[in-house]
Amino acid sequence: MENRWAFTIEWGDCDAAGIVFYPNYFRWFDAAFQQLLRQRGLGQRELGERYGIIGTGLIDCGARFTGPAAYGDEVELVTRIERFEPLSFTVRHIVFKAGRTIVEGFEKRAFLAPGESEGRLRALPVPEAFKALF
Amino acid sequence: MENRWAFTIEWGDCDAAGIVFYPNYFRWFDAAFQQLLRQRGLGQRELGERYGIIGTGLIDCGARFTGPAAYGDEVELVTRIERFEPLSFTVRHIVFKAGRTIVEGFEKRAFLAPGESEGRLRALPVPEAFKALF
Amino acid sequence: MENRWAFTIEWGDCDAAGIVFYPNYFRWFDAAFQQLLRQRGLGQRELGERYGIIGTGLIDCGARFTGPAAYGDEVELVTRIERFEPLSFTVRHIVFKAGRTIVEGFEKRAFLAPGESEGRLRALPVPEAFKALF
Amino acid sequence: MENRWAFTIEWGDCDAAGIVFYPNYFRWFDAAFQQLLRQRGLGQRELGERYGIIGTGLIDCGARFTGPAAYGDEVELVTRIERFEPLSFTVRHIVFKAGRTIVEGFEKRAFLAPGESEGRLRALPVPEAFKALF
Repeated sequence: MENRWAFTIEWGDCDAAGIVFYPNYFRWFDAAFQQLLRQRGLGQRELGERYGIIGTGLIDCGARFTGPAAYGDEVELVTRIERFEPLSFTVRHIVFKAGRTIVEGFEKRAFLAPGESEGRLRALPVPEAFKALF
Repeated sequence: MENRWAFTIEWGDCDAAGIVFYPNYFRWFDAAFQQLLRQRGLGQRELGERYGIIGTGLIDCGARFTGPAAYGDEVELVTRIERFEPLSFTVRHIVFKAGRTIVEGFEKRAFLAPGESEGRLRALPVPEAFKALF
Repeated sequence: MENRWAFTIEWGDCDAAGIVFYPNYFRWFDAAFQQLLRQRGLGQRELGERYGIIGTGLIDCGARFTGPAAYGDEVELVTRIERFEPLSFTVRHIVFKAGRTIVEGFEKRAFLAPGESEGRLRALPVPEAFKALF
Repeated sequence: MENRWAFTIEWGDCDAAGIVFYPNYFRWFDAAFQQLLRQRGLGQRELGERYGIIGTGLIDCGARFTGPAAYGDEVELVTRIERFEPLSFTVRHIVFKAGRTIVEGFEKRAFLAPGESEGRLRALPVPEAFKALF
Protein backbone atom coordinates (compact mmCIF):
# COMPACT_ATOMS: atom_id res chain seq x y z
CA MET A 1 0.00 0.00 0.00
CA GLU A 2 1.89 2.99 -1.24
CA ASN A 3 1.39 6.12 -3.28
CA ARG A 4 3.55 6.77 -6.34
CA TRP A 5 3.47 10.30 -7.72
CA ALA A 6 5.49 11.31 -10.77
CA PHE A 7 5.80 15.01 -11.47
CA THR A 8 8.03 17.60 -13.08
CA ILE A 9 10.02 20.17 -11.13
CA GLU A 10 8.63 23.56 -12.10
CA TRP A 11 10.32 26.93 -12.45
CA GLY A 12 8.71 28.29 -9.31
CA ASP A 13 9.92 25.33 -7.26
CA CYS A 14 13.55 26.32 -7.70
CA ASP A 15 15.62 28.95 -5.99
CA ALA A 16 18.22 31.30 -7.38
CA ALA A 17 20.79 28.49 -7.41
CA GLY A 18 18.54 26.74 -9.94
CA ILE A 19 17.71 23.79 -7.68
CA VAL A 20 14.60 22.94 -5.68
CA PHE A 21 14.05 25.27 -2.73
CA TYR A 22 14.00 22.59 -0.06
CA PRO A 23 10.78 23.51 1.85
CA ASN A 24 8.92 22.47 -1.30
CA TYR A 25 9.81 18.85 -0.58
CA PHE A 26 7.71 19.04 2.58
CA ARG A 27 4.87 20.58 0.59
CA TRP A 28 5.07 17.57 -1.72
CA PHE A 29 5.31 15.16 1.23
CA ASP A 30 2.09 16.59 2.60
CA ALA A 31 0.33 16.37 -0.78
CA ALA A 32 1.55 12.79 -1.25
CA PHE A 33 0.20 11.83 2.17
CA GLN A 34 -3.15 13.32 1.16
CA GLN A 35 -3.07 11.28 -2.04
CA LEU A 36 -2.45 8.16 0.03
CA LEU A 37 -5.48 9.02 2.19
CA ARG A 38 -7.62 9.61 -0.89
CA GLN A 39 -6.61 6.21 -2.27
CA ARG A 40 -8.53 4.87 0.75
CA GLY A 41 -11.43 7.25 0.27
CA LEU A 42 -10.30 9.55 3.05
CA GLY A 43 -9.47 13.22 3.12
CA GLN A 44 -8.63 15.61 5.92
CA ARG A 45 -12.31 16.58 6.02
CA GLU A 46 -13.54 12.99 6.31
CA LEU A 47 -10.95 12.30 8.99
CA GLY A 48 -12.06 15.38 10.88
CA GLU A 49 -15.72 14.47 10.79
CA ARG A 50 -15.21 10.82 11.52
CA TYR A 51 -12.75 11.15 14.39
CA GLY A 52 -13.39 14.62 15.81
CA ILE A 53 -9.91 15.88 14.96
CA ILE A 54 -8.72 19.08 13.37
CA GLY A 55 -6.37 17.08 11.19
CA THR A 56 -3.49 14.65 11.13
CA GLY A 57 -0.95 17.12 12.34
CA LEU A 58 2.82 16.96 12.45
CA ILE A 59 4.76 15.99 15.56
CA ASP A 60 8.12 15.50 13.92
CA CYS A 61 9.53 15.50 10.40
CA GLY A 62 12.81 15.40 8.58
CA ALA A 63 14.54 14.95 5.26
CA ARG A 64 17.98 13.97 4.05
CA PHE A 65 19.19 15.23 0.70
CA THR A 66 21.57 13.19 -1.40
CA GLY A 67 21.16 14.80 -4.80
CA PRO A 68 19.69 17.94 -6.33
CA ALA A 69 16.71 18.33 -8.61
CA ALA A 70 16.40 21.22 -11.02
CA TYR A 71 13.79 22.81 -13.27
CA GLY A 72 12.37 20.34 -15.75
CA ASP A 73 13.59 17.24 -13.91
CA GLU A 74 11.16 14.36 -13.73
CA VAL A 75 10.94 12.94 -10.24
CA GLU A 76 8.88 10.29 -8.51
CA LEU A 77 7.77 10.47 -4.90
CA VAL A 78 6.97 7.15 -3.25
CA THR A 79 5.04 7.32 0.02
CA ARG A 80 3.79 4.79 2.53
CA ILE A 81 2.89 4.57 6.19
CA GLU A 82 5.83 2.86 7.76
CA ARG A 83 4.92 2.44 11.39
CA PHE A 84 2.03 2.85 13.79
CA GLU A 85 2.52 3.78 17.41
CA PRO A 86 -0.25 4.25 19.99
CA LEU A 87 -0.44 8.04 19.56
CA SER A 88 1.24 8.58 16.19
CA PHE A 89 2.17 7.10 12.86
CA THR A 90 5.14 7.63 10.60
CA VAL A 91 4.90 8.32 6.89
CA ARG A 92 7.98 7.54 4.82
CA HIS A 93 8.74 9.49 1.61
CA ILE A 94 11.41 8.80 -0.98
CA VAL A 95 12.06 11.03 -4.00
CA PHE A 96 13.66 9.36 -7.00
CA LYS A 97 15.26 11.07 -9.97
CA ALA A 98 16.26 8.83 -12.88
CA GLY A 99 16.00 5.81 -10.57
CA ARG A 100 18.31 7.26 -7.95
CA THR A 101 17.17 8.34 -4.46
CA ILE A 102 17.70 12.07 -4.05
CA VAL A 103 15.64 12.78 -0.93
CA GLU A 104 14.47 10.58 1.93
CA GLY A 105 12.03 12.05 4.39
CA PHE A 106 9.49 11.23 7.03
CA GLU A 107 6.50 12.76 8.73
CA LYS A 108 5.44 11.64 12.19
CA ARG A 109 1.78 12.52 12.45
CA ALA A 110 -0.90 12.37 15.12
CA PHE A 111 -4.67 12.58 15.25
CA LEU A 112 -4.84 16.05 16.79
CA ALA A 113 -7.88 17.38 18.64
CA PRO A 114 -8.34 20.67 20.48
CA GLY A 115 -6.64 20.50 23.89
CA GLU A 116 -7.93 21.59 27.28
CA SER A 117 -6.49 25.08 27.14
CA GLU A 118 -6.97 27.36 24.15
CA GLY A 119 -4.33 27.21 21.48
CA ARG A 120 -3.15 23.74 22.54
CA LEU A 121 -3.71 20.46 20.78
CA ARG A 122 -3.63 16.91 22.08
CA ALA A 123 -3.03 13.61 20.30
CA LEU A 124 -5.78 11.01 20.26
CA PRO A 125 -5.03 7.30 19.94
CA VAL A 126 -4.62 6.32 16.29
CA PRO A 127 -7.98 4.64 15.46
CA GLU A 128 -7.84 0.91 14.78
CA ALA A 129 -10.08 1.42 11.73
CA PHE A 130 -7.50 3.81 10.30
CA LYS A 131 -4.63 1.38 10.89
CA ALA A 132 -6.63 -1.37 9.23
CA LEU A 133 -6.89 0.67 6.02
CA PHE A 134 -3.12 0.85 5.60
CA MET B 1 25.93 35.21 17.85
CA GLU B 2 22.32 34.53 16.98
CA ASN B 3 19.50 35.92 14.90
CA ARG B 4 16.20 36.85 16.53
CA TRP B 5 13.28 37.40 14.19
CA ALA B 6 9.84 38.37 15.46
CA PHE B 7 6.97 38.16 13.00
CA THR B 8 3.24 37.62 12.73
CA ILE B 9 1.66 34.49 11.28
CA GLU B 10 -0.21 35.57 8.18
CA TRP B 11 -3.43 34.28 6.64
CA GLY B 12 -1.62 32.65 3.75
CA ASP B 13 0.71 30.78 6.10
CA CYS B 14 -2.14 28.71 7.50
CA ASP B 15 -3.95 25.71 6.14
CA ALA B 16 -7.61 24.81 6.21
CA ALA B 17 -7.29 23.68 9.83
CA GLY B 18 -6.38 27.28 10.67
CA ILE B 19 -2.84 26.50 11.80
CA VAL B 20 0.51 27.02 10.11
CA PHE B 21 1.04 24.73 7.12
CA TYR B 22 4.22 23.12 8.36
CA PRO B 23 6.49 23.49 5.28
CA ASN B 24 6.38 27.23 5.97
CA TYR B 25 8.53 26.68 9.04
CA PHE B 26 11.34 25.52 6.77
CA ARG B 27 10.83 28.57 4.56
CA TRP B 28 11.28 30.69 7.68
CA PHE B 29 14.30 28.64 8.80
CA ASP B 30 15.95 29.37 5.48
CA ALA B 31 15.15 33.08 5.67
CA ALA B 32 16.43 33.23 9.25
CA PHE B 33 19.68 31.59 8.21
CA GLN B 34 20.03 34.20 5.46
CA GLN B 35 19.45 36.93 8.05
CA LEU B 36 22.20 35.43 10.17
CA LEU B 37 24.54 35.51 7.15
CA ARG B 38 23.63 39.12 6.42
CA GLN B 39 24.42 40.08 10.01
CA ARG B 40 27.98 39.16 9.05
CA GLY B 41 27.83 40.95 5.72
CA LEU B 42 27.35 37.75 3.78
CA GLY B 43 24.67 36.62 1.39
CA GLN B 44 24.30 33.57 -0.80
CA ARG B 45 25.75 35.60 -3.65
CA GLU B 46 28.82 36.71 -1.68
CA LEU B 47 29.34 33.15 -0.49
CA GLY B 48 29.08 31.92 -4.05
CA GLU B 49 31.60 34.38 -5.41
CA ARG B 50 34.00 34.07 -2.52
CA TYR B 51 34.06 30.29 -2.23
CA GLY B 52 33.05 29.06 -5.69
CA ILE B 53 29.91 27.37 -4.44
CA ILE B 54 26.37 27.35 -5.75
CA GLY B 55 25.11 27.88 -2.22
CA THR B 56 25.01 26.52 1.28
CA GLY B 57 22.75 23.64 0.46
CA LEU B 58 20.88 21.26 2.65
CA ILE B 59 22.16 17.80 3.60
CA ASP B 60 19.69 17.07 6.34
CA CYS B 61 16.95 18.90 8.19
CA GLY B 62 14.19 18.30 10.66
CA ALA B 63 11.66 19.85 12.97
CA ARG B 64 9.69 18.80 16.02
CA PHE B 65 6.37 20.45 16.75
CA THR B 66 5.14 20.92 20.30
CA GLY B 67 2.44 23.53 19.82
CA PRO B 68 0.44 25.13 17.04
CA ALA B 69 0.56 28.69 15.73
CA ALA B 70 -2.42 30.30 14.04
CA TYR B 71 -3.24 33.40 12.02
CA GLY B 72 -2.34 36.57 13.88
CA ASP B 73 -0.04 34.88 16.39
CA GLU B 74 3.18 36.68 17.17
CA VAL B 75 6.14 34.34 17.10
CA GLU B 76 9.89 34.70 17.47
CA LEU B 77 12.41 32.57 15.64
CA VAL B 78 15.85 32.31 17.25
CA THR B 79 18.62 30.95 15.05
CA ARG B 80 22.28 30.17 15.55
CA ILE B 81 24.98 27.95 14.11
CA GLU B 82 25.32 25.17 16.61
CA ARG B 83 28.12 23.00 15.32
CA PHE B 84 30.79 22.88 12.66
CA GLU B 85 31.98 19.66 11.13
CA PRO B 86 34.65 19.29 8.45
CA LEU B 87 32.16 19.16 5.55
CA SER B 88 29.04 20.64 7.10
CA PHE B 89 27.57 22.86 9.77
CA THR B 90 24.32 22.68 11.70
CA VAL B 91 21.95 25.59 12.15
CA ARG B 92 19.57 25.38 15.12
CA HIS B 93 16.17 27.09 14.99
CA ILE B 94 13.66 27.55 17.80
CA VAL B 95 10.23 29.13 17.36
CA PHE B 96 8.69 30.71 20.45
CA LYS B 97 5.09 31.76 20.94
CA ALA B 98 4.27 33.70 24.08
CA GLY B 99 7.57 32.56 25.58
CA ARG B 100 6.90 28.88 24.96
CA THR B 101 8.81 26.74 22.44
CA ILE B 102 6.45 25.53 19.75
CA VAL B 103 8.91 24.28 17.11
CA GLU B 104 12.52 23.14 17.29
CA GLY B 105 14.34 22.55 14.06
CA PHE B 106 17.72 22.19 12.44
CA GLU B 107 19.34 22.49 9.07
CA LYS B 108 22.57 20.66 8.31
CA ARG B 109 24.19 22.59 5.49
CA ALA B 110 27.24 22.20 3.30
CA PHE B 111 29.24 24.40 0.96
CA LEU B 112 28.05 22.80 -2.26
CA ALA B 113 29.92 23.03 -5.55
CA PRO B 114 29.15 21.40 -8.89
CA GLY B 115 30.27 17.75 -8.83
CA GLU B 116 32.20 15.76 -11.41
CA SER B 117 29.18 14.48 -13.27
CA GLU B 118 26.34 16.69 -14.38
CA GLY B 119 23.49 17.14 -11.97
CA ARG B 120 25.59 16.13 -8.97
CA LEU B 121 26.94 18.34 -6.22
CA ARG B 122 29.82 17.83 -3.81
CA ALA B 123 30.54 19.33 -0.40
CA LEU B 124 33.65 21.47 0.04
CA PRO B 125 35.36 21.81 3.43
CA VAL B 126 33.71 24.53 5.48
CA PRO B 127 36.11 27.50 5.14
CA GLU B 128 37.95 28.52 8.30
CA ALA B 129 37.15 32.16 7.55
CA PHE B 130 33.45 31.32 7.60
CA LYS B 131 33.72 29.46 10.90
CA ALA B 132 35.57 32.39 12.41
CA LEU B 133 32.65 34.71 11.64
CA PHE B 134 30.24 32.69 13.76
CA MET C 1 -4.73 55.51 6.28
CA GLU C 2 -2.19 53.21 4.72
CA ASN C 3 0.11 50.36 5.63
CA ARG C 4 3.84 50.63 4.97
CA TRP C 5 5.81 47.41 5.16
CA ALA C 6 9.56 47.29 4.59
CA PHE C 7 11.13 43.89 4.12
CA THR C 8 14.03 42.09 2.50
CA ILE C 9 13.69 39.78 -0.48
CA GLU C 10 14.71 36.34 0.70
CA TRP C 11 16.45 33.50 -1.10
CA GLY C 12 13.31 31.39 -1.25
CA ASP C 13 11.33 34.24 -2.81
CA CYS C 14 13.41 34.13 -5.99
CA ASP C 15 13.31 31.81 -8.94
CA ALA C 16 16.11 30.29 -10.95
CA ALA C 17 16.58 33.60 -12.83
CA GLY C 18 17.51 35.14 -9.48
CA ILE C 19 14.52 37.49 -9.34
CA VAL C 20 11.30 37.35 -7.34
CA PHE C 21 8.98 34.57 -8.47
CA TYR C 22 6.00 36.77 -9.22
CA PRO C 23 3.20 34.91 -7.36
CA ASN C 24 5.01 35.94 -4.17
CA TYR C 25 3.93 39.54 -4.78
CA PHE C 26 0.33 38.45 -4.33
CA ARG C 27 1.27 36.62 -1.15
CA TRP C 28 2.74 39.90 0.10
CA PHE C 29 -0.31 41.86 -1.07
CA ASP C 30 -2.53 39.59 1.00
CA ALA C 31 -0.29 39.90 4.07
CA ALA C 32 -0.17 43.69 3.68
CA PHE C 33 -3.95 43.83 3.51
CA GLN C 34 -4.10 41.79 6.72
CA GLN C 35 -1.68 44.25 8.33
CA LEU C 36 -3.95 47.09 7.30
CA LEU C 37 -6.91 45.30 8.92
CA ARG C 38 -4.92 44.69 12.10
CA GLN C 39 -4.04 48.39 12.27
CA ARG C 40 -7.79 48.84 12.84
CA GLY C 41 -8.03 45.97 15.28
CA LEU C 42 -9.51 43.61 12.74
CA GLY C 43 -8.44 40.22 11.49
CA GLN C 44 -10.04 37.73 9.16
CA ARG C 45 -11.43 35.97 12.24
CA GLU C 46 -12.99 39.12 13.71
CA LEU C 47 -14.46 39.98 10.32
CA GLY C 48 -15.89 36.51 10.04
CA GLU C 49 -17.51 36.57 13.47
CA ARG C 50 -18.75 40.12 13.20
CA TYR C 51 -20.22 39.93 9.70
CA GLY C 52 -20.96 36.24 9.17
CA ILE C 53 -18.54 35.92 6.28
CA ILE C 54 -15.93 33.31 5.47
CA GLY C 55 -13.48 36.07 4.63
CA THR C 56 -12.80 39.05 2.43
CA GLY C 57 -12.26 37.05 -0.69
CA LEU C 58 -10.89 38.02 -4.06
CA ILE C 59 -13.05 38.95 -7.02
CA ASP C 60 -10.34 40.39 -9.20
CA CYS C 61 -6.66 41.18 -8.92
CA GLY C 62 -3.73 42.25 -11.00
CA ALA C 63 -0.17 43.53 -11.01
CA ARG C 64 2.08 45.42 -13.41
CA PHE C 65 5.83 44.92 -13.16
CA THR C 66 8.22 47.72 -14.06
CA GLY C 67 11.40 46.54 -12.42
CA PRO C 68 12.85 43.40 -10.88
CA ALA C 69 13.75 42.69 -7.27
CA ALA C 70 16.40 40.16 -6.34
CA TYR C 71 17.69 38.37 -3.25
CA GLY C 72 18.77 40.79 -0.55
CA ASP C 73 16.95 43.79 -2.02
CA GLU C 74 15.17 46.01 0.46
CA VAL C 75 11.67 46.84 -0.71
CA GLU C 76 8.71 48.71 0.73
CA LEU C 77 5.09 47.79 0.09
CA VAL C 78 2.57 50.60 0.53
CA THR C 79 -1.07 49.55 0.78
CA ARG C 80 -4.37 51.37 1.11
CA ILE C 81 -8.03 50.87 0.34
CA GLU C 82 -8.62 52.95 -2.72
CA ARG C 83 -12.29 52.63 -3.48
CA PHE C 84 -15.50 51.27 -2.02
CA GLU C 85 -18.30 49.98 -4.17
CA PRO C 86 -21.62 48.54 -2.94
CA LEU C 87 -20.48 44.91 -3.11
CA SER C 88 -16.69 45.23 -3.16
CA PHE C 89 -13.68 47.35 -2.32
CA THR C 90 -10.35 47.78 -4.02
CA VAL C 91 -7.00 47.59 -2.27
CA ARG C 92 -4.07 49.30 -3.99
CA HIS C 93 -0.51 48.04 -3.51
CA ILE C 94 2.73 49.65 -4.63
CA VAL C 95 6.16 48.07 -4.18
CA PHE C 96 9.11 50.45 -4.06
CA LYS C 97 12.78 49.57 -4.39
CA ALA C 98 15.26 52.35 -3.69
CA GLY C 99 12.45 54.89 -4.06
CA ARG C 100 11.38 53.62 -7.46
CA THR C 101 8.06 51.84 -8.13
CA ILE C 102 8.73 48.30 -9.30
CA VAL C 103 5.28 46.74 -8.96
CA GLU C 104 1.78 48.20 -8.88
CA GLY C 105 -1.06 45.92 -8.00
CA PHE C 106 -4.61 45.77 -6.82
CA GLU C 107 -7.00 43.39 -5.12
CA LYS C 108 -10.75 43.76 -5.54
CA ARG C 109 -12.28 42.08 -2.53
CA ALA C 110 -15.76 41.26 -1.31
CA PHE C 111 -17.37 40.20 1.95
CA LEU C 112 -18.05 36.60 0.95
CA ALA C 113 -20.61 34.38 2.63
CA PRO C 114 -21.70 30.84 1.77
CA GLY C 115 -24.08 30.91 -1.20
CA GLU C 116 -27.35 29.11 -1.73
CA SER C 117 -25.89 26.05 -3.39
CA GLU C 118 -22.94 24.17 -2.00
CA GLY C 119 -19.52 25.28 -3.14
CA ARG C 120 -20.75 28.73 -4.17
CA LEU C 121 -20.14 32.03 -2.44
CA ARG C 122 -22.06 35.30 -2.60
CA ALA C 123 -20.96 38.87 -1.89
CA LEU C 124 -22.62 40.78 0.94
CA PRO C 125 -22.87 44.57 0.91
CA VAL C 126 -19.68 46.11 2.31
CA PRO C 127 -20.69 47.11 5.88
CA GLU C 128 -20.83 50.85 6.57
CA ALA C 129 -18.94 50.30 9.83
CA PHE C 130 -16.09 48.75 7.85
CA LYS C 131 -15.98 51.64 5.39
CA ALA C 132 -15.94 54.11 8.26
CA LEU C 133 -12.73 52.53 9.62
CA PHE C 134 -10.79 53.24 6.45
CA MET D 1 -2.25 24.77 -29.45
CA GLU D 2 -3.10 24.72 -25.77
CA ASN D 3 -2.10 23.04 -22.55
CA ARG D 4 -4.67 21.19 -20.47
CA TRP D 5 -3.66 20.33 -16.94
CA ALA D 6 -5.98 18.47 -14.56
CA PHE D 7 -5.01 18.39 -10.92
CA THR D 8 -6.41 18.13 -7.41
CA ILE D 9 -6.46 20.99 -4.93
CA GLU D 10 -4.23 19.98 -2.06
CA TRP D 11 -4.45 20.72 1.64
CA GLY D 12 -1.50 23.12 1.55
CA ASP D 13 -3.07 25.10 -1.31
CA CYS D 14 -5.93 26.27 0.89
CA ASP D 15 -6.10 28.96 3.52
CA ALA D 16 -7.86 29.02 6.86
CA ALA D 17 -11.19 29.68 5.12
CA GLY D 18 -10.78 26.29 3.46
CA ILE D 19 -10.51 27.65 -0.09
CA VAL D 20 -7.52 28.12 -2.37
CA PHE D 21 -5.16 30.86 -1.21
CA TYR D 22 -5.31 32.93 -4.35
CA PRO D 23 -1.58 33.52 -5.05
CA ASN D 24 -1.41 29.79 -5.77
CA TYR D 25 -3.39 30.36 -8.96
CA PHE D 26 -0.48 32.42 -10.30
CA ARG D 27 1.93 29.66 -9.29
CA TRP D 28 -0.19 27.28 -11.36
CA PHE D 29 -0.40 29.77 -14.25
CA ASP D 30 3.38 29.90 -14.35
CA ALA D 31 3.69 26.10 -14.23
CA ALA D 32 1.06 25.74 -16.98
CA PHE D 33 2.96 28.18 -19.17
CA GLN D 34 6.11 26.12 -18.63
CA GLN D 35 4.18 23.01 -19.63
CA LEU D 36 3.08 24.76 -22.80
CA LEU D 37 6.72 25.62 -23.57
CA ARG D 38 7.81 22.04 -22.93
CA GLN D 39 5.14 20.78 -25.34
CA ARG D 40 7.24 22.58 -27.95
CA GLY D 41 10.52 21.28 -26.59
CA LEU D 42 11.35 24.53 -24.88
CA GLY D 43 12.13 25.37 -21.28
CA GLN D 44 13.25 28.53 -19.57
CA ARG D 45 16.83 27.28 -19.90
CA GLU D 46 16.55 26.62 -23.63
CA LEU D 47 14.93 30.02 -24.14
CA GLY D 48 17.71 31.63 -22.17
CA GLU D 49 20.48 29.99 -24.14
CA ARG D 50 18.82 30.42 -27.51
CA TYR D 51 17.77 34.06 -27.16
CA GLY D 52 20.16 35.51 -24.58
CA ILE D 53 17.41 36.25 -22.11
CA ILE D 54 17.14 35.67 -18.38
CA GLY D 55 13.61 34.42 -18.88
CA THR D 56 10.15 35.20 -20.15
CA GLY D 57 9.33 37.61 -17.38
CA LEU D 58 6.10 39.19 -16.35
CA ILE D 59 5.03 42.69 -17.42
CA ASP D 60 1.42 42.46 -16.35
CA CYS D 61 -0.93 39.84 -14.98
CA GLY D 62 -4.37 39.48 -13.54
CA ALA D 63 -7.10 37.09 -12.53
CA ARG D 64 -10.83 37.25 -11.99
CA PHE D 65 -12.46 34.83 -9.59
CA THR D 66 -16.01 33.61 -10.13
CA GLY D 67 -16.12 30.56 -7.89
CA PRO D 68 -14.11 28.96 -5.12
CA ALA D 69 -12.12 25.74 -5.12
CA ALA D 70 -11.48 23.78 -1.96
CA TYR D 71 -9.36 20.88 -0.76
CA GLY D 72 -9.91 17.77 -2.84
CA ASP D 73 -11.60 19.54 -5.74
CA GLU D 74 -10.59 18.39 -9.19
CA VAL D 75 -9.83 21.32 -11.46
CA GLU D 76 -8.56 21.75 -15.00
CA LEU D 77 -6.35 24.61 -16.12
CA VAL D 78 -6.45 25.40 -19.84
CA THR D 79 -3.67 27.61 -21.16
CA ARG D 80 -2.80 29.11 -24.52
CA ILE D 81 -0.93 32.04 -25.97
CA GLU D 82 -3.61 34.45 -26.99
CA ARG D 83 -1.81 37.35 -28.60
CA PHE D 84 1.60 38.42 -29.80
CA GLU D 85 2.73 42.01 -29.73
CA PRO D 86 6.12 43.30 -30.86
CA LEU D 87 7.65 43.29 -27.37
CA SER D 88 5.33 40.97 -25.47
CA PHE D 89 2.85 38.14 -25.64
CA THR D 90 -0.22 37.32 -23.59
CA VAL D 91 -0.94 33.93 -22.08
CA ARG D 92 -4.56 33.18 -21.26
CA HIS D 93 -5.48 30.81 -18.42
CA ILE D 94 -8.88 29.42 -17.50
CA VAL D 95 -9.53 27.21 -14.47
CA PHE D 96 -12.54 24.92 -14.69
CA LYS D 97 -14.21 23.04 -11.85
CA ALA D 98 -16.91 20.55 -12.78
CA GLY D 99 -17.14 22.17 -16.22
CA ARG D 100 -17.69 25.66 -14.85
CA THR D 101 -15.14 28.49 -15.13
CA ILE D 102 -13.98 29.53 -11.68
CA VAL D 103 -10.92 31.64 -12.54
CA GLU D 104 -9.87 33.50 -15.66
CA GLY D 105 -6.38 34.93 -15.75
CA PHE D 106 -3.67 36.24 -18.01
CA GLU D 107 0.05 36.77 -18.01
CA LYS D 108 1.64 39.36 -20.28
CA ARG D 109 5.22 38.24 -20.72
CA ALA D 110 8.32 39.59 -22.42
CA PHE D 111 11.68 38.23 -23.46
CA LEU D 112 13.71 39.96 -20.77
CA ALA D 113 17.43 40.60 -21.02
CA PRO D 114 19.74 42.48 -18.64
CA GLY D 115 19.31 46.23 -19.14
CA GLU D 116 21.95 48.93 -19.43
CA SER D 117 22.07 49.79 -15.76
CA GLU D 118 22.40 47.15 -13.06
CA GLY D 119 19.20 45.77 -11.67
CA ARG D 120 17.16 46.77 -14.72
CA LEU D 121 15.78 44.57 -17.42
CA ARG D 122 14.72 45.36 -20.98
CA ALA D 123 12.31 43.60 -23.33
CA LEU D 124 13.65 42.15 -26.58
CA PRO D 125 11.42 41.72 -29.62
CA VAL D 126 9.52 38.45 -29.43
CA PRO D 127 11.44 36.16 -31.82
CA GLU D 128 9.63 35.15 -34.99
CA ALA D 129 10.75 31.56 -34.45
CA PHE D 130 9.03 31.56 -31.09
CA LYS D 131 5.80 32.94 -32.52
CA ALA D 132 5.87 30.31 -35.23
CA LEU D 133 5.87 27.54 -32.62
CA PHE D 134 2.56 28.67 -31.13
